[in-house]
Amino acid sequence: MSIVIKGGTLVTADLTTKADIRVEDGRIAEIGPNLSGDETIDASGAYVMPGGIDPHTHLEMPFMGTHSSDDFDTGTAAALAGGTTMVVDFCLPAPNQGLIDALQAWHQKAGKARCDFGFHMAITWWGEQVFAEMPRVVAEGINTFKHFMAYKGALMVNDDEMFASFSRCAEIGALPLVHAENGDVVAFLQQKLLTEGNNGPEAHAYSRPPEVEGEATNRAIMIADQAGVPLYVVHVSCEESHEAIRRARQKGMRVFGEPLIQHLTLDEGEYRNPDWDYAARRVMSPPFRDRKHQDSLWAGLQAGSLQVVATDHCAFTTEQKRTGVGDFTKIPNGTGGLEDRMAVLWTKGVRTGRLTMNEFVAATSTNIAKILNVYPRKGALLVGADGDIVVWDPGATKTVRAASQKSAIDYNVFEGFELTGLPAVTLSRGRVAYRNGEVMAGTGEGRFVERPANAPVSQALSTWKELTAPRRIERSGIPAGV
Amino acid sequence: MSIVIKGGTLVTADLTTKADIRVEDGRIAEIGPNLSGDETIDASGAYVMPGGIDPHTHLEMPFMGTHSSDDFDTGTAAALAGGTTMVVDFCLPAPNQGLIDALQAWHQKAGKARCDFGFHMAITWWGEQVFAEMPRVVAEGINTFKHFMAYKGALMVNDDEMFASFSRCAEIGALPLVHAENGDVVAFLQQKLLTEGNNGPEAHAYSRPPEVEGEATNRAIMIADQAGVPLYVVHVSCEESHEAIRRARQKGMRVFGEPLIQHLTLDEGEYRNPDWDYAARRVMSPPFRDRKHQDSLWAGLQAGSLQVVATDHCAFTTEQKRTGVGDFTKIPNGTGGLEDRMAVLWTKGVRTGRLTMNEFVAATSTNIAKILNVYPRKGALLVGADGDIVVWDPGATKTVRAASQKSAIDYNVFEGFELTGLPAVTLSRGRVAYRNGEVMAGTGEGRFVERPANAPVSQALSTWKELTAPRRIERSGIPAGV
Amino acid sequence: MSIVIKGGTLVTADLTTKADIRVEDGRIAEIGPNLSGDETIDASGAYVMPGGIDPHTHLEMPFMGTHSSDDFDTGTAAALAGGTTMVVDFCLPAPNQGLIDALQAWHQKAGKARCDFGFHMAITWWGEQVFAEMPRVVAEGINTFKHFMAYKGALMVNDDEMFASFSRCAEIGALPLVHAENGDVVAFLQQKLLTEGNNGPEAHAYSRPPEVEGEATNRAIMIADQAGVPLYVVHVSCEESHEAIRRARQKGMRVFGEPLIQHLTLDEGEYRNPDWDYAARRVMSPPFRDRKHQDSLWAGLQAGSLQVVATDHCAFTTEQKRTGVGDFTKIPNGTGGLEDRMAVLWTKGVRTGRLTMNEFVAATSTNIAKILNVYPRKGALLVGADGDIVVWDPGATKTVRAASQKSAIDYNVFEGFELTGLPAVTLSRGRVAYRNGEVMAGTGEGRFVERPANAPVSQALSTWKELTAPRRIERSGIPAGV
Amino acid sequence: MSIVIKGGTLVTADLTTKADIRVEDGRIAEIGPNLSGDETIDASGAYVMPGGIDPHTHLEMPFMGTHSSDDFDTGTAAALAGGTTMVVDFCLPAPNQGLIDALQAWHQKAGKARCDFGFHMAITWWGEQVFAEMPRVVAEGINTFKHFMAYKGALMVNDDEMFASFSRCAEIGALPLVHAENGDVVAFLQQKLLTEGNNGPEAHAYSRPPEVEGEATNRAIMIADQAGVPLYVVHVSCEESHEAIRRARQKGMRVFGEPLIQHLTLDEGEYRNPDWDYAARRVMSPPFRDRKHQDSLWAGLQAGSLQVVATDHCAFTTEQKRTGVGDFTKIPNGTGGLEDRMAVLWTKGVRTGRLTMNEFVAATSTNIAKILNVYPRKGALLVGADGDIVVWDPGATKTVRAASQKSAIDYNVFEGFELTGLPAVTLSRGRVAYRNGEVMAGTGEGRFVERPANAPVSQALSTWKELTAPRRIERSGIPAGV
Repeated sequence: MSIVIKGGTLVTADLTTKADIRVEDGRIAEIGPNLSGDETIDASGAYVMPGGIDPHTHLEMPFMGTHSSDDFDTGTAAALAGGTTMVVDFCLPAPNQGLIDALQAWHQKAGKARCDFGFHMAITWWGEQVFAEMPRVVAEGINTFKHFMAYKGALMVNDDEMFASFSRCAEIGALPLVHAENGDVVAFLQQKLLTEGNNGPEAHAYSRPPEVEGEATNRAIMIADQAGVPLYVVHVSCEESHEAIRRARQKGMRVFGEPLIQHLTLDEGEYRNPDWDYAARRVMSPPFRDRKHQDSLWAGLQAGSLQVVATDHCAFTTEQKRTGVGDFTKIPNGTGGLEDRMAVLWTKGVRTGRLTMNEFVAATSTNIAKILNVYPRKGALLVGADGDIVVWDPGATKTVRAASQKSAIDYNVFEGFELTGLPAVTLSRGRVAYRNGEVMAGTGEGRFVERPANAPVSQALSTWKELTAPRRIERSGIPAGV
Repeated sequence: MSIVIKGGTLVTADLTTKADIRVEDGRIAEIGPNLSGDETIDASGAYVMPGGIDPHTHLEMPFMGTHSSDDFDTGTAAALAGGTTMVVDFCLPAPNQGLIDALQAWHQKAGKARCDFGFHMAITWWGEQVFAEMPRVVAEGINTFKHFMAYKGALMVNDDEMFASFSRCAEIGALPLVHAENGDVVAFLQQKLLTEGNNGPEAHAYSRPPEVEGEATNRAIMIADQAGVPLYVVHVSCEESHEAIRRARQKGMRVFGEPLIQHLTLDEGEYRNPDWDYAARRVMSPPFRDRKHQDSLWAGLQAGSLQVVATDHCAFTTEQKRTGVGDFTKIPNGTGGLEDRMAVLWTKGVRTGRLTMNEFVAATSTNIAKILNVYPRKGALLVGADGDIVVWDPGATKTVRAASQKSAIDYNVFEGFELTGLPAVTLSRGRVAYRNGEVMAGTGEGRFVERPANAPVSQALSTWKELTAPRRIERSGIPAGV
Repeated sequence: MSIVIKGGTLVTADLTTKADIRVEDGRIAEIGPNLSGDETIDASGAYVMPGGIDPHTHLEMPFMGTHSSDDFDTGTAAALAGGTTMVVDFCLPAPNQGLIDALQAWHQKAGKARCDFGFHMAITWWGEQVFAEMPRVVAEGINTFKHFMAYKGALMVNDDEMFASFSRCAEIGALPLVHAENGDVVAFLQQKLLTEGNNGPEAHAYSRPPEVEGEATNRAIMIADQAGVPLYVVHVSCEESHEAIRRARQKGMRVFGEPLIQHLTLDEGEYRNPDWDYAARRVMSPPFRDRKHQDSLWAGLQAGSLQVVATDHCAFTTEQKRTGVGDFTKIPNGTGGLEDRMAVLWTKGVRTGRLTMNEFVAATSTNIAKILNVYPRKGALLVGADGDIVVWDPGATKTVRAASQKSAIDYNVFEGFELTGLPAVTLSRGRVAYRNGEVMAGTGEGRFVERPANAPVSQALSTWKELTAPRRIERSGIPAGV
Repeated sequence: MSIVIKGGTLVTADLTTKADIRVEDGRIAEIGPNLSGDETIDASGAYVMPGGIDPHTHLEMPFMGTHSSDDFDTGTAAALAGGTTMVVDFCLPAPNQGLIDALQAWHQKAGKARCDFGFHMAITWWGEQVFAEMPRVVAEGINTFKHFMAYKGALMVNDDEMFASFSRCAEIGALPLVHAENGDVVAFLQQKLLTEGNNGPEAHAYSRPPEVEGEATNRAIMIADQAGVPLYVVHVSCEESHEAIRRARQKGMRVFGEPLIQHLTLDEGEYRNPDWDYAARRVMSPPFRDRKHQDSLWAGLQAGSLQVVATDHCAFTTEQKRTGVGDFTKIPNGTGGLEDRMAVLWTKGVRTGRLTMNEFVAATSTNIAKILNVYPRKGALLVGADGDIVVWDPGATKTVRAASQKSAIDYNVFEGFELTGLPAVTLSRGRVAYRNGEVMAGTGEGRFVERPANAPVSQALSTWKELTAPRRIERSGIPAGV
């Protein structure tokens, strides 16, 4: 069974050109004029782009005895409806749980996925077992390790552990990721705010100011540099963090930054909404920021100092959010976005002239595919690549409404956004997975995507670090010690 | 007649993969395993990359009654021997000469070219005729206009003229280029140094300090921003200039920067050589810099704040250089580099781990192809692209010697450099143009490459500038004037 | 006749301490406990500070056949009422007018001054005569030369002229000042806006964006550096300009920056007022800016990267402003502030905790006295210093009202500001010049203050520039020239 | 007994003027022309300046069962011989030792001091007792608390403890100090280097790269900002750390930086000396840096982003250094400098034109007196100030030789420096303490200098932090929690 996408304009991170695409056996089989196949999708007037990749989701994430409400079924349904054909979720070992053990649990949950998926492995504690299992995780097709510098007493690792883990990543050709917020300071501020009676959702934002994120980003970068490994900073929400990344890159350091679609378009004013539920639904970490930070993030995408737009999709219902009534530190952190990411970025980015269409593809798909070392299997329109394709209708419009979304939760932080430019058809490994508002891919049709270690940037950095390593000074004689 | 490059590893700006390439009728006809054709090039153990593009040459450039010594014949021979398959030369109208008129003269000179070529049109004066001819130049396939902020009394244009020309570029979808040095200050410093008896080649460097380049870069950026047009800064030689570019990019401005291979690898110590000829041969503008600037430029290539490595190839013989004995301001400005650029960058960049191979291709070919809006015709290994390909032997070595170079001049600023990684075969539009030390392409075989206006970045910027244009405040009433 | 200020707290740029001050014969005669004199001023509960110095005024400035409406009489009355005891006004030679000639005219106008005053000499054109007269101007007690980079076709000087004048300043130990806006670009934007029908006061702001100021600041700094002279940038209004200053200072360059009290507290929203008169009254260059720039300026005062708060007092009546109805480029540029500067800075700076009281004194008086090389004659509470003192009542309050101001104009840009902290008594050279709302100093009582050349910073910079000057490379032999 | 210093030129942080000074009863009694007293010091041709203050010494510091070799006797003798009249030493409580208890021990050691002295209290552990004793320490005249971010397992405190201590400082009006190096990373690198056989003194430098210092500085600044307290960063040795300080100051944060005279003038090349002893004697933390960092530090002094030049005088003999033969981590950290600081800074700073004489006084005395809130008792030439004065002979020369120094150690890191400009006479509280190469002050003549809390900058910052504190959002209703 082959499908031909006909009459469209191909848009990749590199170029824009008229051509047809034929997919067969899950892969792109041919690109060129006048193709034909068993089935034809009419893409006249549409853009044909690599399917989106969202490298930052928490589906069915365990939380205080319950889970985030979108699981791999509903979450990937939302993804496909939004033009996203691959998600990378975070595997979070419990304290002292082995990495491989946790991985099995995640594979189990992911069995429900409708689109392809991968995992980042979180380093939530440190010990001999973790050290030993890291190469095994890589052998399992996972080349990224996530480190939380926040969530003290839970997921947080300290500098020691980060250095050890980053060094290990350098050895095995893996890429460390960080959630960069100073957990000690956050904990202190949370306590102070609660003590002062500041217990509402707005205090969540107060307890995590941009400076706290900027500091942690800066620290993680230094540690990565000393350990001789590239670094990927998730959910860069503010100028302070972006500045640290830019400063590092200006020195030739290999640091990547990922803003979220939320931080690009929503600001801290949301927390001042008089409706507790409204504000609590926007609680995520880092929180939304003063509007000036948005300019910084957009410019980062334009300049290339930030590379990827993600969602941190971690959906909790209003009911779940209310766990934190009276104590903002108990509001579960997270919002949705999987269905909205691409259309919001198109509307606010491409249509305004902030981004070219090619930059849009780079930010939503190609860049992260390269960083995660699955390019060109994913993120490309090339013969041999997976048939993960979105047919984008630049004239289609909609108003975001939670009522009609695929996600399992009862609200949407983009509620009321007027969008122009939407996915018309989404193909996942060569099959129509979404069309006309309907998700066609069944639960369980997604496959795990293995990602090899030793991406080119990692290799280059190793060479450089070896070349510039400390050299012992030869001395004629050394005095007797004391 | 088809040629197949077999057994090699394809390296593009995007990816590294094993595949064969078949070229036919001047273009890439097929990419895949096990290809065959009329002729086979064995690329086992080699990298197969897009041919280099050098966007900055001055071949047979008029100068004080004579010309730069490499013309389109010897210059493009050197290019092909170095793996470069396209050059973009600067068409320089004389004072009050029409643009189209000058263009004809340049086309005539370029008739000797052995590889493909394009032109940038220089705006060396301003007037109604220039304004009127600019769209005609675009129609002739030239989408870039160069502006010299230095060379007072000769090529230099002032802020007024730059603003007018940049605004015109914005209207017609062209890209302005600048040579960024403050010509007024250079002229002042030249006079001062001569007055003080400082007349040797080292005074050339003294008369053009980095601050003078940084200032002009900053100014050109501001003018481009106000005119609403992207900007390309040629020969970025120093941190000051790079800093201005970074600062602009951090605000979302669309500014590109081009370091030269010379500035990446040679420093101002060259001018302190006691041999006058040695020092004078290195006279170019901007001059070589203190070594710390090199780190800045390399980091720029790594971070993406600088995009292109060029040569500013403008070759004068020692005899020509001696015009400036006793008065450094009369030393003709320029050095060679066309044959050396790619191998020097490979040795000093890729082999050290500063750059990945993909970044090497981006910096020598793909990025400028995109900026000049000829991608993917040039700068790509894609079906349909021109058959401009270099087969790179990463194990081949040589010591740079002027004695054996293709260039017409009698010295080489890289003399004695030990290089590892060299072109084995260069193909130009599908034909073997260089192999085993011998240039096979004949003089006149190169073709002019037309480049269309309105590159994606220009279009996006126009959209943004329109969206954010000043808006008139509506007032209920306005008092009577005085 | 001696006066003793008793019971107050002395606040200087250095320290805060309880002491009495006795002034006699125009100078501070004694500082200490329990002093007595012919007359006593009770300063209990008050702060006793050096009188303010406003280094940036345009009193009775010629403009299109008329003059700015505050002359040396009303202007210095406003100054004294605001706690300011010295103003420095700009002497503006007409085209081709000699400097000394212009100076005589300014001395004549200043005959009406009620408080002490000095002049900056503007370089409004360049030629042999100007060059020759500059040392004579210095001999007349003026050690500062002002350069307008804006006002094309009128006051503007180009880079050539600036370099020549700055170099001359370096030779004679004078300090160059710049009004930093790119006049070419402003002229272009003005024309463009008018052509588009954007002719209201808001277009004044559109025509002078921060980038245009930042560029000129950056350029002036480079020229000063190359000429080997410190630089003082007047009316720094924005982050872009401040950034250029910081960047220079971070390299050890000697650059000073002066924000105005207007830019610290008023923003561009003022130009969106639907009342034409309201908006036009706020027209000054640079214009008021987006609020984020205010944070930058305040931080500059805190960090020391900006040193002086001035007013650019140049008062035009509403009637005069209406000259620009229908064409914003004809609205006379300028606002008032002499009476308001210190109290507004106290309220918005000291009372908020942005500045210490000592920093307040530094910013309003001591720093500029040092920069202008009249410290400690002015700007100090030291025995021997001029008796220019303000007794400051930190508890006094008022609402700014044009109706009750000393200035001759019919509005006040700070109208409605609630101020806490006001001058109770102002002494000028040892005499009570203002008390209880009443100016006691008579017109003509002010004296011209001579300022010697070769301030310490200028001397140090000369030493450094000599030490690091370009050195000729000695060569064994030089080839014969061509 | 009164002493008059006659015929000299007074040089303070503010001004340069001819005047005599009369000291009596330990204080400056009169400043003016033609003074007379019981004894006269001829200062013709000399500069008369406030005595130096060195805020960073470790005299008789406990170390591995022994002590640093200069105690309060020899150390302060060296100080006086170098023109320094006050030192501030670090009181270091042992693990779990009470602050007051440690303070008594330090007072005992300091009994031998020949010049005045103060203490900084180190926070080397955290607990209820420390929290409770901090205000008592302030009541004892100590307004500064030092935090070591390095020396893991010994003095180091973590982020938690720093935040707690900084917050406490904010409450009690004290100023936190930090030694900024990431101790975790240093420990890791030390271990790695030793494992690789890199055990010589050069590895000390390798184990503490500038990035590690920059990171810690950045972190301390963030914590101070969140705690609402100013910060003083000791021994800023590199651009990375200085950059963090500048970045903070550019946002209005109140951060001070102290380069050492060693880092201003010596570079990491010292560790490459083939003589083990030579290199080991230079071992201090942070280590000497690549020369480019020196430019940054000098510029910081010029720009005001760094304020104080200190020594970190902590003198270990060659014998003591040899404890680290075979294991660089055991080389005691520290060098001397008390006798050399002012003359080296004068020679390398004032005589080159980098600094004015007034800036010299500011950097060696006045600025730190203000920061430590003992100005104008110390650091000033004002009536009532302590008679701590140095008569500086700008023409005197010497070559630094360990053989003739006052310090107890057997080498000098400035050995061979040619100095021009030396103290001729040093007065301590009105008595001649050093003259003609001879220290006249007896051991035990120094007095403890109490420093009050709540310096103006601390007060201002508190006001600002209160004004901008998080505010609770008022909500009409809040849902029932879960």
